[in-house]
Amino acid sequence: MMQIVRVNVRSGKITETPVAGEQAYYGGRQLIAKVLTQEVSPICDPLGRYNKLIFAPGWLGGTVVTTSGRLSIGAKSPLTGGVKESNVGGDAGQKLARLGIRALILEDVPEEVGLRIVHVDRRGIRFAKGTHLSGHTVSETFTILREQYGNSIGLLVIGPAGEMLMTAAGVATTDREGIQIRYAARGGLGSVMGSKGIKAIVIDDAGTTNDAGHDPDRFKETAKRFTDLLLASPKIEGRRKYGTAGIVAKANELGLLPTRNFSAGSFEEIDSITGARLAELIAERGGEGRSGTACMSGCVIRCSNVFPDADGKRKVASLQYENIALLGSNCGIGSLDGIATLNALCNEIGLDAIEMGGVLGVTMDAGLIPFGDVEGAAGFLREIQDGTPLGRILGQGVTFAGQALGVRRIPAVNGQGIPGYDPRALKGNGVTYVTSPMGADHTAGNAFGTAGTIDPLAKKGQLENSRGLQIRAMILDMSGLCLFARGPLVESPGLLADLLSARFGWDISFPKIVAMAVDTLETERAFNDRAGVSDRFADVPEFMRVEPLPPHGTVYDLTNEEMQAIWKIEPETSRF
Amino acid sequence: MMQIVRVNVRSGKITETPVAGEQAYYGGRQLIAKVLTQEVSPICDPLGRYNKLIFAPGWLGGTVVTTSGRLSIGAKSPLTGGVKESNVGGDAGQKLARLGIRALILEDVPEEVGLRIVHVDRRGIRFAKGTHLSGHTVSETFTILREQYGNSIGLLVIGPAGEMLMTAAGVATTDREGIQIRYAARGGLGSVMGSKGIKAIVIDDAGTTNDAGHDPDRFKETAKRFTDLLLASPKIEGRRKYGTAGIVAKANELGLLPTRNFSAGSFEEIDSITGARLAELIAERGGEGRSGTACMSGCVIRCSNVFPDADGKRKVASLQYENIALLGSNCGIGSLDGIATLNALCNEIGLDAIEMGGVLGVTMDAGLIPFGDVEGAAGFLREIQDGTPLGRILGQGVTFAGQALGVRRIPAVNGQGIPGYDPRALKGNGVTYVTSPMGADHTAGNAFGTAGTIDPLAKKGQLENSRGLQIRAMILDMSGLCLFARGPLVESPGLLADLLSARFGWDISFPKIVAMAVDTLETERAFNDRAGVSDRFADVPEFMRVEPLPPHGTVYDLTNEEMQAIWKIEPETSRF
Repeated sequence: MMQIVRVNVRSGKITETPVAGEQAYYGGRQLIAKVLTQEVSPICDPLGRYNKLIFAPGWLGGTVVTTSGRLSIGAKSPLTGGVKESNVGGDAGQKLARLGIRALILEDVPEEVGLRIVHVDRRGIRFAKGTHLSGHTVSETFTILREQYGNSIGLLVIGPAGEMLMTAAGVATTDREGIQIRYAARGGLGSVMGSKGIKAIVIDDAGTTNDAGHDPDRFKETAKRFTDLLLASPKIEGRRKYGTAGIVAKANELGLLPTRNFSAGSFEEIDSITGARLAELIAERGGEGRSGTACMSGCVIRCSNVFPDADGKRKVASLQYENIALLGSNCGIGSLDGIATLNALCNEIGLDAIEMGGVLGVTMDAGLIPFGDVEGAAGFLREIQDGTPLGRILGQGVTFAGQALGVRRIPAVNGQGIPGYDPRALKGNGVTYVTSPMGADHTAGNAFGTAGTIDPLAKKGQLENSRGLQIRAMILDMSGLCLFARGPLVESPGLLADLLSARFGWDISFPKIVAMAVDTLETERAFNDRAGVSDRFADVPEFMRVEPLPPHGTVYDLTNEEMQAIWKIEPETSRF
Repeated sequence: MMQIVRVNVRSGKITETPVAGEQAYYGGRQLIAKVLTQEVSPICDPLGRYNKLIFAPGWLGGTVVTTSGRLSIGAKSPLTGGVKESNVGGDAGQKLARLGIRALILEDVPEEVGLRIVHVDRRGIRFAKGTHLSGHTVSETFTILREQYGNSIGLLVIGPAGEMLMTAAGVATTDREGIQIRYAARGGLGSVMGSKGIKAIVIDDAGTTNDAGHDPDRFKETAKRFTDLLLASPKIEGRRKYGTAGIVAKANELGLLPTRNFSAGSFEEIDSITGARLAELIAERGGEGRSGTACMSGCVIRCSNVFPDADGKRKVASLQYENIALLGSNCGIGSLDGIATLNALCNEIGLDAIEMGGVLGVTMDAGLIPFGDVEGAAGFLREIQDGTPLGRILGQGVTFAGQALGVRRIPAVNGQGIPGYDPRALKGNGVTYVTSPMGADHTAGNAFGTAGTIDPLAKKGQLENSRGLQIRAMILDMSGLCLFARGPLVESPGLLADLLSARFGWDISFPKIVAMAVDTLETERAFNDRAGVSDRFADVPEFMRVEPLPPHGTVYDLTNEEMQAIWKIEPETSRF
């Protein structure tokens, strides 16, 4: 029986309740939307007593289905002021699900200071002292906890940034070997965890097995069909070879690659930061370097990498598109080593690297350091770690830093930094940034993949496209599946319904799943409406409406009013 | 004929349009609400191209009516994100009105950097170079401009904080002699002026006269009746003797005096900061010290003062209740000299002293300096002036500073610092802070004066009281009258209608004026609704709901839902 586990960090009370009624149908992002709506005041202080931090595996978590272990983490966001779900790979989600936990909810804030650990295993949930972890970086924290609790645990931790309640802080996790540092990065959820006084959640699933499902044979067979379709996808080879960095060159070619604080869409040093160059460097340097590794056990896509330094020692794992775009071209940095240095610092300090790429671009635009200055940028990240006054500005994200520094070109929507797709050259993403309940978050509906079929510079078709993408992203976020696992569903939309029906015995169909996704989007929007951060009040930053973006010379020209029409578009139910 | 003057700081175009149609009925805060609603996108960037900064005298500006020269300044606020009107005494408003200007509107932002002056006289409006004023303090700027343009000018200027686009910056003005520094302090309007690249507006009304009105004899007679009633008020003596500081002791007694970052409502060093002590010190020290001075020509109330140092030299003018409460007890500072030091620094740097009192209280709560540390606090204000990283945190106001410093007790509503009345011990003000379109602003409806008739600790009657106070404040803000001139209207509600009818020939009555005030409140609320900062999403800070305030031990307990009922209360039309 799946459980909802509530941990009150003030009273110390821990309750486990079996999922019941409607709850049985809630997974991942959907469950977060429902809990926030039912239990959290939309006008509460995100770092105060009344916010809740929710960890929820998706529908397929804890099973043999490949990539199904993504963990959704959510709360009212201190960055956007609205609902936030950020999901992450690694092994924590799968372990939580195998323990029968549909959601772990941290409630209230502690009366006394002093970091703690929440320890979860088959015997139950308890607090442990965490003061020895205070101020430790993320990988130090992993190391200490793996020494303390063994190597088979799943981990969810915050770095110094989260401890200091900095709103650019994320929640970190790792893979089975403790090599990767993966983030539920967006929306400042690390600061919410910090506000709860929890440095780490340790998940020990020893003695558990994958759930075989309601109809084990059918489930196993369907899961295999899913894997086979995924493995047959023509995209998989590129993903293994280059990871997400495979799109760097294309983004540059499309003129949407954030460059020097979003003042251009292509970068003159592009050749030194592409996915091909990344793969080449990893192969050349050897040592601990790897391409095509998995971030979670059982993933057959394996889009991660380990980027080594010149001596072959691991420098950062994994180096990905968003971080190359934001910490690289957006900062005028044309060196993968330089980008890896900054990315590793973000990972260790506990910061969202997308948000920080925006922040560093803004410091350069303000003239604090020149574009391209890796050492200067690294120094700023260390100031965040040290909590200096400047660090306290920068650790709060790009909107905050831009305001403090008096910069007028602030690349953010609704308080959250824009990821690696300039909406002037990929207008579908502008629609997603403004209308999605998640704010400027490409994972909520990324039009990059459709740039070949829908003119990314034109207004036409962007609403329909974003609408479809937002619904598809939601379906994956409810399932616990990776966005990269969408291929089999595109080929065979009924497959997910088959999996759910085989696992839970549900009477379900693809159109029903679409309806659930639409319902969840509406639930999130209703929360945001009541929090005062309705998409009706959101907009791309003003400079994107008035400064044409080279090389295409386009501005963002969909008005808020025009974008509102997205909510009248009937969802597509015949194809994924 | 009254004019609306538009100054486009980008194109350089200046247009003067006679007021026409409905506009003829708009004064002060009302005109600001209408212009913002009709011309400014509620979702625009407050410091960007599409915000407008509006200077609007009230209905009675430019006449002989005493205290009628208050100037309303307004824009979409960078602090609250909503409509903001902040009004101020001094001589600038009267001079603008005497020049026939119903509103001066600064539009757009300049393409090139370089401060400018807007110069207004009988011959028209023009730009002048202002680069020589860059970085100058407020009184330095006054001095330079009076040397440059003569002593009979009215002035509206920003300090270094406004130039740096710091959102705690206000707009300063002065009296005829250039002694007082008065502020349209709240809402960050100084940063909006900074974003327009305008350091100062110089208003020369040489050759103009007061408007005698549509029916000069009746107008003169009614204005005299107004003055006589005001002079007959029993409150006037206290106001002249002690100024607004006259309420310090009472605020302490009522347990609502902000003390040590709003952790208590009364202060053990109260005796050294009361209005009586202030008057005593001024009298003892002599020299340039004065009690009972006027901030604007022709005011018969004369509640201002000049606070001298031990040698009799002017230290700050005027030292007022809000600043004593926020920079004094709220910072644990029990010395008028210490308070005056901080107040003078705020005035010179161009900062809202209420907002800064909140900020300094938060720095002390964060442990950066101890409560009571005048030197430390002064050092922080100088850091703002210098634009250091810490200064850039503190100059953005209390919400921003609190977030950057990781403080959980942040005394603000909707991004704006709470003034000198803790809502836990004066619940009517909590209603005003949350429901008023102006946010945490006592001038929008201050229940202090009614604490004797409505139990300030109980829920009962607070909505009705705040509703009435908000309407009355609006009427005064439309008229250009000082809040302290309300006495005659209480005694004779028809008096204002008589004045307006005699000045403009309007067919008007007190109930009609109430209807106009209600309409303006609704206009402001509609703007805020469309900006995403509806009062439905506002709340007192969470700590005020959970931390009982000594000495009464009360928390703020009106829910947002309860407060929303205020909009169903029928306005009182039979008495002021």
